[in-house]
Amino acid sequence: MLESLKQQVFKANLDLVKHGLVLFTWGNVSAIDRKQNLVVIKPSGVSYETMTPDDMVVVDLDGNVVDGILRPSSDTPTHLELYKAFTSIGGVVHTHSTYATAWAQAGKGIPNIGTTHADYFHDDIPCTEDMTREEVQGDYELETGHVIVKRFEAINPVHTPGVLVKNHGPFTWGKDADEAVYHAVVLEEVAKMAAIAFTINPDLNMSEHLIEKHFSRKHGPNSYYGQNNI
Amino acid sequence: MLESLKQQVFKANLDLVKHGLVLFTWGNVSAIDRKQNLVVIKPSGVSYETMTPDDMVVVDLDGNVVDGILRPSSDTPTHLELYKAFTSIGGVVHTHSTYATAWAQAGKGIPNIGTTHADYFHDDIPCTEDMTREEVQGDYELETGHVIVKRFEAINPVHTPGVLVKNHGPFTWGKDADEAVYHAVVLEEVAKMAAIAFTINPDLNMSEHLIEKHFSRKHGPNSYYGQNNI
Amino acid sequence: MLESLKQQVFKANLDLVKHGLVLFTWGNVSAIDRKQNLVVIKPSGVSYETMTPDDMVVVDLDGNVVDGILRPSSDTPTHLELYKAFTSIGGVVHTHSTYATAWAQAGKGIPNIGTTHADYFHDDIPCTEDMTREEVQGDYELETGHVIVKRFEAINPVHTPGVLVKNHGPFTWGKDADEAVYHAVVLEEVAKMAAIAFTINPDLNMSEHLIEKHFSRKHGPNSYYGQNNI
Amino acid sequence: MLESLKQQVFKANLDLVKHGLVLFTWGNVSAIDRKQNLVVIKPSGVSYETMTPDDMVVVDLDGNVVDGILRPSSDTPTHLELYKAFTSIGGVVHTHSTYATAWAQAGKGIPNIGTTHADYFHDDIPCTEDMTREEVQGDYELETGHVIVKRFEAINPVHTPGVLVKNHGPFTWGKDADEAVYHAVVLEEVAKMAAIAFTINPDLNMSEHLIEKHFSRKHGPNSYYGQNNI
Repeated sequence: MLESLKQQVFKANLDLVKHGLVLFTWGNVSAIDRKQNLVVIKPSGVSYETMTPDDMVVVDLDGNVVDGILRPSSDTPTHLELYKAFTSIGGVVHTHSTYATAWAQAGKGIPNIGTTHADYFHDDIPCTEDMTREEVQGDYELETGHVIVKRFEAINPVHTPGVLVKNHGPFTWGKDADEAVYHAVVLEEVAKMAAIAFTINPDLNMSEHLIEKHFSRKHGPNSYYGQNNI
Repeated sequence: MLESLKQQVFKANLDLVKHGLVLFTWGNVSAIDRKQNLVVIKPSGVSYETMTPDDMVVVDLDGNVVDGILRPSSDTPTHLELYKAFTSIGGVVHTHSTYATAWAQAGKGIPNIGTTHADYFHDDIPCTEDMTREEVQGDYELETGHVIVKRFEAINPVHTPGVLVKNHGPFTWGKDADEAVYHAVVLEEVAKMAAIAFTINPDLNMSEHLIEKHFSRKHGPNSYYGQNNI
Repeated sequence: MLESLKQQVFKANLDLVKHGLVLFTWGNVSAIDRKQNLVVIKPSGVSYETMTPDDMVVVDLDGNVVDGILRPSSDTPTHLELYKAFTSIGGVVHTHSTYATAWAQAGKGIPNIGTTHADYFHDDIPCTEDMTREEVQGDYELETGHVIVKRFEAINPVHTPGVLVKNHGPFTWGKDADEAVYHAVVLEEVAKMAAIAFTINPDLNMSEHLIEKHFSRKHGPNSYYGQNNI
Repeated sequence: MLESLKQQVFKANLDLVKHGLVLFTWGNVSAIDRKQNLVVIKPSGVSYETMTPDDMVVVDLDGNVVDGILRPSSDTPTHLELYKAFTSIGGVVHTHSTYATAWAQAGKGIPNIGTTHADYFHDDIPCTEDMTREEVQGDYELETGHVIVKRFEAINPVHTPGVLVKNHGPFTWGKDADEAVYHAVVLEEVAKMAAIAFTINPDLNMSEHLIEKHFSRKHGPNSYYGQNNI
C-alpha cells in the first residue's frame, strides 16, 4: 500500500539525520496522497538506524491507522491538521534542530533579515502563541495543529513554509516530503545566521524591496533561478 | 566476573566518544549490579582508543577493587555515593561536555524552557552549591557525591536524571549505563539550546502545564510516546 | 572550449563543499581567461553531487553564453562587473557561508582585529551600502556588482580580496579560482573569530603597525612566509 | 639526523589537523633535542596533505638551519626564545585555533573558571601586552618570544603551559611535542567553554581551593589521576 510514498517518506526521514537535524528519534516526516487522502508517517520512537520503509505507518485524515503494525508518530495529529488546513502542501517535517528550537524556546519569530531567508520564506518565520492549559491538557497534538493554523491566518503558508511552535520546535512543509526536508534545513541555517547576526548588531535592518526581489527570483512567474524555468 | 556488565560499560564509554561528549579521557561511565552491590567502572586516565572490556574495574560500594588490574576512575567515590543515595538507578555518567560544562562554570542550573528538556528532565537541571575548603581538601570526590545528593533533597532524581557540579561539569544517570549515556547526550543538547535561547531573549518563559504535559508523554502510566507502551 | 579552466572552476566549486561553505546549491565560483575575455562559471541551481566539468558555462563579458547548454549562475552579472573593474583578478567566489553572512545581515564590515585577518586582508572587510529600490528592481545582479565596486573606491581590491553584500553574503576573489576559494575560507574563519571576540570584549583593539607587519609578511617584495620567495 | 624527533614532530603536526585546530598551513609544532640543542620544526607554508617527515627542518638555537632543504616556519624565532627561557620544556605548538584566537583578539586572558582548565593550567591563561611599533617592525618573531617570556615573569610556565599572543593566537608547550599538542587541544576547549560561560553569567566565580585541588590531582607528588603513579 502506497509503497512509493513509503519509500519517499523513509528516505526523507534519513535525510534529516544526514543533515544533522535530529538526535536519536527526535524528528519525523510525513507525506500525503491527496487522491486517497492518506498520509504516510514515521512510526513513534523508532531508531533511524534500524528503521525500514515497511515500518512507515499509513493513516487517514482522522488519524486511523489503515496500514502498518507500529504506532504512528505522536505528532501525527499535528501533521494531519496542517494537511487539512494547507490544502496545497504534500509533505510535513518536525524536528528539534538546535538553532530553530532555540528561537522557539526564546518565543520569538525569526525576522527576515537576509536573502538566504527571503529566497525560501517570504515573511518572518512566525512563532506560535502560548497554548492554554486547556489546549495542552486536552488533545495536545491536535491543538498544536490549531495554534499553527491560527498563526497563519494572515500569512500564506506556501510562501512561508515553516513555523516555530513556542517552547517546542519547528515544523516545515512543502510540495512533497523532500521539499519539506529542504525547508527544515534552510530554517535551521537561517535560525543560526540570525542568532549570530543579532549578537553582532541588535539594530540591523533589511529593506522590503530586497525581500520581494529575492523571493520572486525563486518563486512565481518571473523566477529566473535554476534550470527548470528556461 | 560480571562480564556482561563490563561489556555494557565498555560500550557505553565508547558511545560517549561517538556522540562527541568527551575529549581524550575526560569522561567515565559506570553501572551497578544491584544483587551483588558491585559497580563496574572505567579505569582512570586510559585512552578510549586502546581500552578493552577487560580493562573495566569492579569495585564494591566501599570503593574496594574486587576485580581488575587498573586503578578505577578518580571519580569513583562520586559514582558510589549516587548509587547509595539514588537506589533505583543502574548507571552513572560523568563528562566535561562543552555546553553543560559552560553552564556549570557559570554556576547556573539550566532552566526548563523547552519540550526537549521537559521530555527527559522534569525540573531545571540543578547546579550544586560551592564546595567548602574542607570538602575540597578532604575526601573531595566523596564530598562531590554529597553535594549532589544534598542538591536533590527536594528533587526526584529519577524524574530529573542529571546535575551540574559547579565549576566542574555534568553527571547524569539512568536505569542502566545506556540510559545514563542517553541522558548525557540530551543534557548537552538542552544546555546548548538554552545558551542560545537566552542570548535571543533573556526574558523568555515556559508554562508549567506544558512542562507537565511533555514529561508525562514519555513517563508514567499515561505515557504514549514510542512503541513499548501500546 | 577552455577545458582546463572548466576543470579548475569545477574543482573549485567542489572545494567550497569540502570546506563546509555551501549548503545545497548556495555558492558559485568563476574564473576568467583574460586573453579571450571569457568567463567560466557554475550553472544556476545545479546540485554539486551530480555536476560535471562539462556543465560549466562559458560567457563573454557582456553575459552572452558562448559555450554550454545550461543557464549560468544567476549571480553571473555580479561576477562580470568584478572582472571588469578589478582587472588583475582571475577568480571570483560567492557563498552564503554562515558567519560571513551573519555579518552581512548585521550590516557591518568585519574589523581587522587579528593577524589571521591581516595575513590575507589588509583592511576591514567592507560591507556594502543598502541598495535602492531602483537598483533592486532593475538589473539587480549587475547593480550588486556596481555597489561592490563603488565600495572599493578607496580600497585596493587585491590587498583586501573580499566584501560583504549587505543582507546577502560574501564575495571573494583572487588571482585564480583556487585563491578565490582560499579567501572565502579565510573570510568565514575571521568572521567567526571576530563574532566571538566581540562578545568577549566589545572594546578590543589592534594596532596599525601589527596589521602592516602581518600583511607584508605574506605580500609584497619583503614577504618571507612560505617556500616560494626564498 | 634526528630521524626519530622528525617523525614525532611530523606526527604532532598532523595531530593538530586531526583535532581541528588548523586550517591550511596555520599551525606549527617543534621539539628540541636538549643534548644537542637542536630543534626540529615544521617548514613554512607547506601543506599538511603533502608534507613528509623528511620535510622537517633542523635548526640550532641561533636559528641556523643545520639540516633540511626547506625554510623553517616563520615563527621559528618565537619557538627558540621559548626553549631558551623555559629550559624544562621539550615541545612547542602554535595555532590559530578559533576560540583561543578569539580570546587573543579580544586581548583578554582566559580566567581559570573550571576544573577542565585547572586540571592542566594552574593560572589564568595569560594574554601578552601590545607590542610596540619598534618590536613589530624589528625582529618581530623574536620579539614575540620576548613578550611571551616577559609575561611569564611571575608565572610558572610548566604549571601554565600556554599563552595568548595579543591579536594573534595561542602558543602552548609541554615536555615533548605530543604534550604540547595535547595542551593546544585543551586550551581551545577551555577557551570555548569560557566564552560560552561568560555569556550565561558574566559574574561567575571559582574558588581558589578548587583550582588548587584539581591542579594537584594531576600534577606533583600527591597526584592520583591515571595509571602512572600507582
